[in-house]
Amino acid sequence: MSYIPSKLLEQRLVQFLHEDIQYGDVTSELVPNVPVKAKVISKQEGILCGLKFVKILLKSLNVEVSTPFKDGEAIREGDEVLLLHGLSRPILVTERTILNLMMRLSGIATQTRNLVNKVHKSGQKMIIASTRKTTPGFRYFEKYAVKAGGGDPHRWNLSDTVLIKENHLKLLKEDAITTLLNQSKEVTSFSKKVDIEVENIAELKIALKFSPEIIMLDEFSINDIREAIEIVRTKSKQNPPLIEISGGITEQNIEDYFIPGVDIISVGALTHSVQALDFSMKICEVMPFREGEESIVD
Amino acid sequence: MSYIPSKLLEQRLVQFLHEDIQYGDVTSELVPNVPVKAKVISKQEGILCGLKFVKILLKSLNVEVSTPFKDGEAIREGDEVLLLHGLSRPILVTERTILNLMMRLSGIATQTRNLVNKVHKSGQKMIIASTRKTTPGFRYFEKYAVKAGGGDPHRWNLSDTVLIKENHLKLLKEDAITTLLNQSKEVTSFSKKVDIEVENIAELKIALKFSPEIIMLDEFSINDIREAIEIVRTKSKQNPPLIEISGGITEQNIEDYFIPGVDIISVGALTHSVQALDFSMKICEVMPFREGEESIVD
Amino acid sequence: MSYIPSKLLEQRLVQFLHEDIQYGDVTSELVPNVPVKAKVISKQEGILCGLKFVKILLKSLNVEVSTPFKDGEAIREGDEVLLLHGLSRPILVTERTILNLMMRLSGIATQTRNLVNKVHKSGQKMIIASTRKTTPGFRYFEKYAVKAGGGDPHRWNLSDTVLIKENHLKLLKEDAITTLLNQSKEVTSFSKKVDIEVENIAELKIALKFSPEIIMLDEFSINDIREAIEIVRTKSKQNPPLIEISGGITEQNIEDYFIPGVDIISVGALTHSVQALDFSMKICEVMPFREGEESIVD
Amino acid sequence: MSYIPSKLLEQRLVQFLHEDIQYGDVTSELVPNVPVKAKVISKQEGILCGLKFVKILLKSLNVEVSTPFKDGEAIREGDEVLLLHGLSRPILVTERTILNLMMRLSGIATQTRNLVNKVHKSGQKMIIASTRKTTPGFRYFEKYAVKAGGGDPHRWNLSDTVLIKENHLKLLKEDAITTLLNQSKEVTSFSKKVDIEVENIAELKIALKFSPEIIMLDEFSINDIREAIEIVRTKSKQNPPLIEISGGITEQNIEDYFIPGVDIISVGALTHSVQALDFSMKICEVMPFREGEESIVD
Amino acid sequence: MSYIPSKLLEQRLVQFLHEDIQYGDVTSELVPNVPVKAKVISKQEGILCGLKFVKILLKSLNVEVSTPFKDGEAIREGDEVLLLHGLSRPILVTERTILNLMMRLSGIATQTRNLVNKVHKSGQKMIIASTRKTTPGFRYFEKYAVKAGGGDPHRWNLSDTVLIKENHLKLLKEDAITTLLNQSKEVTSFSKKVDIEVENIAELKIALKFSPEIIMLDEFSINDIREAIEIVRTKSKQNPPLIEISGGITEQNIEDYFIPGVDIISVGALTHSVQALDFSMKICEVMPFREGEESIVD
Amino acid sequence: MSYIPSKLLEQRLVQFLHEDIQYGDVTSELVPNVPVKAKVISKQEGILCGLKFVKILLKSLNVEVSTPFKDGEAIREGDEVLLLHGLSRPILVTERTILNLMMRLSGIATQTRNLVNKVHKSGQKMIIASTRKTTPGFRYFEKYAVKAGGGDPHRWNLSDTVLIKENHLKLLKEDAITTLLNQSKEVTSFSKKVDIEVENIAELKIALKFSPEIIMLDEFSINDIREAIEIVRTKSKQNPPLIEISGGITEQNIEDYFIPGVDIISVGALTHSVQALDFSMKICEVMPFREGEESIVD
Repeated sequence: MSYIPSKLLEQRLVQFLHEDIQYGDVTSELVPNVPVKAKVISKQEGILCGLKFVKILLKSLNVEVSTPFKDGEAIREGDEVLLLHGLSRPILVTERTILNLMMRLSGIATQTRNLVNKVHKSGQKMIIASTRKTTPGFRYFEKYAVKAGGGDPHRWNLSDTVLIKENHLKLLKEDAITTLLNQSKEVTSFSKKVDIEVENIAELKIALKFSPEIIMLDEFSINDIREAIEIVRTKSKQNPPLIEISGGITEQNIEDYFIPGVDIISVGALTHSVQALDFSMKICEVMPFREGEESIVD
Repeated sequence: MSYIPSKLLEQRLVQFLHEDIQYGDVTSELVPNVPVKAKVISKQEGILCGLKFVKILLKSLNVEVSTPFKDGEAIREGDEVLLLHGLSRPILVTERTILNLMMRLSGIATQTRNLVNKVHKSGQKMIIASTRKTTPGFRYFEKYAVKAGGGDPHRWNLSDTVLIKENHLKLLKEDAITTLLNQSKEVTSFSKKVDIEVENIAELKIALKFSPEIIMLDEFSINDIREAIEIVRTKSKQNPPLIEISGGITEQNIEDYFIPGVDIISVGALTHSVQALDFSMKICEVMPFREGEESIVD
Repeated sequence: MSYIPSKLLEQRLVQFLHEDIQYGDVTSELVPNVPVKAKVISKQEGILCGLKFVKILLKSLNVEVSTPFKDGEAIREGDEVLLLHGLSRPILVTERTILNLMMRLSGIATQTRNLVNKVHKSGQKMIIASTRKTTPGFRYFEKYAVKAGGGDPHRWNLSDTVLIKENHLKLLKEDAITTLLNQSKEVTSFSKKVDIEVENIAELKIALKFSPEIIMLDEFSINDIREAIEIVRTKSKQNPPLIEISGGITEQNIEDYFIPGVDIISVGALTHSVQALDFSMKICEVMPFREGEESIVD
Repeated sequence: MSYIPSKLLEQRLVQFLHEDIQYGDVTSELVPNVPVKAKVISKQEGILCGLKFVKILLKSLNVEVSTPFKDGEAIREGDEVLLLHGLSRPILVTERTILNLMMRLSGIATQTRNLVNKVHKSGQKMIIASTRKTTPGFRYFEKYAVKAGGGDPHRWNLSDTVLIKENHLKLLKEDAITTLLNQSKEVTSFSKKVDIEVENIAELKIALKFSPEIIMLDEFSINDIREAIEIVRTKSKQNPPLIEISGGITEQNIEDYFIPGVDIISVGALTHSVQALDFSMKICEVMPFREGEESIVD
Repeated sequence: MSYIPSKLLEQRLVQFLHEDIQYGDVTSELVPNVPVKAKVISKQEGILCGLKFVKILLKSLNVEVSTPFKDGEAIREGDEVLLLHGLSRPILVTERTILNLMMRLSGIATQTRNLVNKVHKSGQKMIIASTRKTTPGFRYFEKYAVKAGGGDPHRWNLSDTVLIKENHLKLLKEDAITTLLNQSKEVTSFSKKVDIEVENIAELKIALKFSPEIIMLDEFSINDIREAIEIVRTKSKQNPPLIEISGGITEQNIEDYFIPGVDIISVGALTHSVQALDFSMKICEVMPFREGEESIVD
Repeated sequence: MSYIPSKLLEQRLVQFLHEDIQYGDVTSELVPNVPVKAKVISKQEGILCGLKFVKILLKSLNVEVSTPFKDGEAIREGDEVLLLHGLSRPILVTERTILNLMMRLSGIATQTRNLVNKVHKSGQKMIIASTRKTTPGFRYFEKYAVKAGGGDPHRWNLSDTVLIKENHLKLLKEDAITTLLNQSKEVTSFSKKVDIEVENIAELKIALKFSPEIIMLDEFSINDIREAIEIVRTKSKQNPPLIEISGGITEQNIEDYFIPGVDIISVGALTHSVQALDFSMKICEVMPFREGEESIVD
């Protein structure tokens, strides 16, 4: 995954915790603040994700964390994915935030890996990509989980890659469209790729004239995809665009779309309809205070 | 829903937009910034939610919004749920943020309404409640959608309602538990309710001694729930607690849990595993500039 | 007090410090930045409060803190309540922020404890509660001090507990009031208590029909309070509401209100008219640098 | 008062409102959101302060405000200080925040004016100044109230004016003190004044050698103040410093300190021990919707 | 320029204003707050930039702005570039912030346009690009000015475009470099371009094997650039990379680098060493209050 | 420099880093995250500045920093000004932010020192001062560099020092000017200095009547400056104001302005037109992991 130092993520994770704590945990104040060991246990098999964030958050509350796993690894039901050692109150108040992060992100990683595995089994090389259909305010984490599952994050936001869609072209008279597409390479920074979405074969033929780096075939039928690939092969021998397909592709029908020549399959459901993976946290043992630990009880 | 003035939500919604825009939309700059009409169309039937937020965001960008619907109303496939009139670029850059809000929140409202309807059909009066298993940073919006679907938001955070669970009791020697439960009413503000989670009938009997306002039966079997209700009826004639059940309840099996005496059924999946409702936005017409509108093009 | 990890308070405390430092202390730059010992000394007797926050702030600037006291303990004039060891400049720039926190919070704790002690001496069990009449932006800290003094924080904000007051009822025609009160239990989350404020005995009788968890007698005379309690005893044998009294109660006249049957006495002046407790900070000794300390001078 | 555009205060005032609203007002949702007139009424005489802020906040929620008063004007018990016209829910949710602002700030302005009036009556010209003993996070507002009461805000923070105190000098060997004071004018920006605090006559004599713009006599007796003024008159004929006195001065004894030659009397209690002025808000009338108003109900 | 709605820029611009206002303008409070007309006048010829931001800021303070110019247009000494009509105090307090924005951004736009004009005059088509050598916290505005001057913003940050430099390769043993470069296309999202920086002809030959979209020749001599272009022409007939040159190129020597085959010339000095363009603001006329204007004086 | 604890600067520096990292470094993820040594090397002679900030930022990412220099010291071309030891990825992602800070701040410090040295060589004692012509959002850092170069930061913002300029006086009728100037001392806090800007000798004579602490001669000719100083000497024997000159003063002509009696020379170009000093960072050696270091790789 693109590298970010923990320091830049910590504040955001602490805000997630704040959302759950507000003016304090009215239950934890009833119990003693003593050293404990606790475990996070997987209740389902799947692909684990979220460790990176959970570790940053727990460390910031002086809870020690260890784990035999890495983000993106497969886990089975019953696996002890996280071992915690720290004071009881910090552990109790972060429990829900930690589990919420892991449940959602592991759900996304698992769903992504399922599709990636189908590609591998088919012997093809298509990239499984996510979209911008993410939960507001949580996109970074969801795209991280897509990557952990073996997928491609695709455009992170509207500053990334030019993507010309139907709604853009509707703003223009027919002859203006050519002008727009001609200018797209000129106006756009040389550092960006250009992606043109087409709705049918006729639009594809027009798009090809402008040498975009990527062409997205939007809700094309299987047959139309095959025809489109043939056309691209013929017309763009030098410097052919990447072919992305999108729309109506589900875990059930995806294998129908493993058509040679397709480079990228983008699937909105990876992030917009997530089945969470289930985890639970158990405090397993009250421990004696370690040297100096008593003084940091807060 | 608990009332919040728009002013307090606007900044947060603008941050959601910022997540998608970053340093600018590199595609919109290629097209003219002209007045247009656009529509958001439902691609599935369900319960609509998110209008409140979408309106605040669009108004803050000077886009006029109208809609024949309210949050919580049923929609059918093809319904035009939102009509927009404004400049093309602000509409293009908010498209994804708006749809992401509506897709996720309508998904939650739809799922909640399904369960609420099942209760109604059964002639019972159980409350369908959500949990704190929400997306980090997005809880307010998700609980809003639960309410729009007819559910109860339940605890918003750890400052709301005392909820004593297994992990709390594990911190205590057996005799200390009685002390804790005795003190819970004393230490806690009189303005808060106390909820005790119990794992079995034995624990239930202990919990009843402390007159909590709510008792949560965690992962009880159908039979144990019936027995628990009988015990509560007998032992707490005066001032009986509300009975909440939780754990392993799904859309498929929920009707088995419509047991008289159960007051609340809380369902984590309402927010942790959301099936988004599908919407799309179409620009339908380029309009002439209205008086003074040209001067506010930015 | 409801538990919050230090990490979640640190940023806010650092902002308080920033309010006093802005673009730098133009006086401290004139003196050397050397290790010193310093003391915070109480100049009045009272109840100490604010240590929790002061420790977090000082630690974040690498100043060591020790104290023989805890928040909520009684101190006498001349007590050395805080011993500091650290570099001179961090200590000089936090002096005022630390003292401001301690002065105001100890003032609140002291005032609260005085009232709580009067209750204890009278042999009664009334709860002394604060209100929402707090300094804007500083409520968390002021309610913390109320708790340290032995009082109850009461509602933290408008999301906590439903509280129906005169201004709400004025919005309704007379027959609508019954509807409102009937619905209050239905619309409100089961996790919240309902409190109804009444202005006179007639309103009390109406309110009792709706079984609120709490009834607040607003500016009732001593006689009316006695009558009200009698009515509640008679009419609400099962499941009687808590009785809260409010309005015109001062440190001088509070003993008149120690009427059996009153559960809560809420006093706005606890936070809106605070008499600060006086403290001062003295640098007492310049120390030699300890190993490695010189390298962290900043 | 130093001028700040409303735009720069609005966000901060909205945060104060957020502190009280959190995830929504659970009571207001029970009542209709209809146009009303409401009044804020003074329950005590004093100096009014806070209107500036209250207006910004209410306008940001589309509530119209009018008032016959200005910040700093005298009011009597029963005065209608604010008339509101707007929707009922925005008015209900801002009630407490508005009153908290006005109560505290009017309390400070009233206390300040009392002292200023005593100076005027005595025929003297001393400035009554506040200190940095303010509520953390609320200093701007408290200094504004001091100014509204006729006082001087004095140093806003540690970046304002050099103020050399006992704790600074304790860091230095005796001979180093001279060096420090000599350098103070050189190191400090020419745009700042230098203020030296002295504890006794001997220190005063030393301080005078360094031509500070201000000398603060800390906890001097009446006699010592007289002697100090005489010394300053003799020794600093050209370019004499302003003389500030501080410490132990209360509303009761302040007249003893009206000694010719004293320029400034600074009083910490103005902000650290505030007696709030009492106000209440009453909804007085439900109004019909005005044209277009219905559409902005949120 | 990539499109951002004003709403997303306003808060940042208001923070710039806050940096200059802090707790209020102590001079403006001395003068009346009356309607005035004011002008911003150019004191030098150059390319104007910053209007977009200045307009947003002034509108947010209710000052009307008009201008005959657009960002990126040429201005002469003495041009009245901005006409303001509003209250005197808001205009006085924004004067410095506005001028600082315009001076710096117009300086960058002017410098960029000079280089772009040189390219045009030479009959070549090289892109003049900026770098990430920008003022911390101000990059968005500086890249905006580069674009206004006719330049290309290039990489906005480390998330944009993969750029493999000497420091990356130093982390690897020689054989590992091939592996890295091979993987770069696989690990990187398909939506990003890959740019490889080379220090000499030998490295260029290696880089070409990995088909990057861009190759940057770092501090190459004129001769080496010519040789490099020849090599690229020969070796990458299909799908040749863009050629970027960088290092040691100044306004003085840039014409030497107009070598056919060079696609991009990137110049750090465009943003790291800016010569500001000079502007001044003059209040020219006190105006009568317009209808309703008096009531918004704040 | 006025003292600020690192804790208060860290968050701002991390935001600068965030500006460059956004959602992650897509290049660093391609290389291993291993311990390395790296150096920052000066490519030009000048005055070093920025170390203070660079150290805080690097420490917050667990990179060890050492340097033989201090801010404000002279460096030569080729000097190794910073030695880093830490993990490769944190070093790679902070490289640009660090260099941007050092380049700009050292450029300012160098330019300032050049002017200060000219004063010293001339045997005069004028203060070289900066202005408020700084980069929006970056003023604190730029004024720090001015101080490191030996200059005076002058007014930090509009809350500092009253400065009455032409635009203020234009708001007033002629007779009102006297009133304004008379009041300036009364309305302004005693803790602030008053500075009056004058455009010619006539205005100077008027200004002197009001005993400002500072008079600024704006764009005066050399002769007029001499005349002005003579007038001040004659008219203000007791308590003469500081004389500041400003406008049209450059590195080239500054020596002409070394006129005895001038106290301050303020130069806008110090911050508005900065020539950056060039630095580069080189990774020089891959190191073995140290004990425990492997576990903090993030």
